[in-house]
Amino acid sequence: MTAHRALTVLPVTGLGEVRPGDDLAALLVEATGEDPLRDGDVVVVTQKVVSKAEGRIVALDHDDPAAKRRLIERESRRVLRRRGDLLITETTHGFVCANAGIDLSNVDGGTAALLPVDPDRSARRLRAGIGHRTGAVVAIVVSDTFGRTWRRGVTDVAIGVAGLAGVVDLRGTVDANGRVLEATEVCVADEVAGAAELVMGKASGIPAAIVRGVDPAWLRPSSAATEIVRPPGEDLFR
Amino acid sequence: MTAHRALTVLPVTGLGEVRPGDDLAALLVEATGEDPLRDGDVVVVTQKVVSKAEGRIVALDHDDPAAKRRLIERESRRVLRRRGDLLITETTHGFVCANAGIDLSNVDGGTAALLPVDPDRSARRLRAGIGHRTGAVVAIVVSDTFGRTWRRGVTDVAIGVAGLAGVVDLRGTVDANGRVLEATEVCVADEVAGAAELVMGKASGIPAAIVRGVDPAWLRPSSAATEIVRPPGEDLFR
Repeated sequence: MTAHRALTVLPVTGLGEVRPGDDLAALLVEATGEDPLRDGDVVVVTQKVVSKAEGRIVALDHDDPAAKRRLIERESRRVLRRRGDLLITETTHGFVCANAGIDLSNVDGGTAALLPVDPDRSARRLRAGIGHRTGAVVAIVVSDTFGRTWRRGVTDVAIGVAGLAGVVDLRGTVDANGRVLEATEVCVADEVAGAAELVMGKASGIPAAIVRGVDPAWLRPSSAATEIVRPPGEDLFR
Repeated sequence: MTAHRALTVLPVTGLGEVRPGDDLAALLVEATGEDPLRDGDVVVVTQKVVSKAEGRIVALDHDDPAAKRRLIERESRRVLRRRGDLLITETTHGFVCANAGIDLSNVDGGTAALLPVDPDRSARRLRAGIGHRTGAVVAIVVSDTFGRTWRRGVTDVAIGVAGLAGVVDLRGTVDANGRVLEATEVCVADEVAGAAELVMGKASGIPAAIVRGVDPAWLRPSSAATEIVRPPGEDLFR
């Protein structure tokens, strides 16, 4: 694997407020009109605008902790830990995150944004919609903001992908000294999501970015973020 | 916080093999000579070349599991989990990772690379050395490759920083709808490390990258990756 290329990360501005039923692919194509999408671009879109476009918005009184807890439990397979208001749960998709990924910021008052029902399907639809409108073969990452077990601060990760590998397997690849590599699988999709976050900013309302110049070897006709979910039987800390 | 700017991630090629006692700052300045380092650039350097330059290389028979285990335990405060050959430990720095971060790939046969004794100090020295030679006020991230509890695949994270915040605190920042943000702290240093990994590749022997265009609000006269370490009393899964 060689990757002696520069990468560019471009914020997508001017997307405007996204509402249920909006055609997000059309909005993204319009917002990137001045610098059109190209083959091999990875379009990173935050979960929140995908959820808004798909109507995954529910009424919720933000000041009612019991209602919030019921909603979190409904969106989860199981609760792993509780501390005060914070629940670490395994979502119906298998992601382990705080509060089932339910988002109360950047939504209208009295509402909450749930994760997309199937973020990989959301990604595939966006990819097809953009391809249909522009002819460009892009990849899509649907990103969300997760905490980490041992490290402070949140980072953006991939919860849906289309056209980009979730995990790139380097098993059998030989290092610069001719030895077979030990660290075998790199989660490039999460690194791409995090790189995109660096140009978005949590407060500035930029919900998408283009990552241009990723290694073509990571592009796939079909892929899924479910390959990033560590099966419960494999993890060591549940 | 606004970040309506493009980010560029540039691989640093031609660094050559790094050896104990080498002046890594001088090597980085030389390798980036054609496109000189600028104020605000973040120079991401992998742990391995920092460890090599600092002489943190020890003899180890890769085929002796007991010797490997003893070395891991010596570099750790405690072992959190074992599974076969894999130990998840808390390093002497407080990082939780596999095998105390000891690296057997891309080193000479019969040796292993330990983590730097104090990666923040390593970062500060590189920053001062580059500033001394070029006059540029850069930031440094020393990166390493860690696994994650719930997600498959490894990603690069920051184990040392100088001049860049580890965690950016958005508490009190208002979202695009005027509501105070809930997700309060973003680990931009880890996202920068991951972005750099995208142009390095594990097998291609590129041990450094420049991340150009990060939000100037994240630059700090003094910072430390130790702020990314979640105190054991705060985490929920130990």
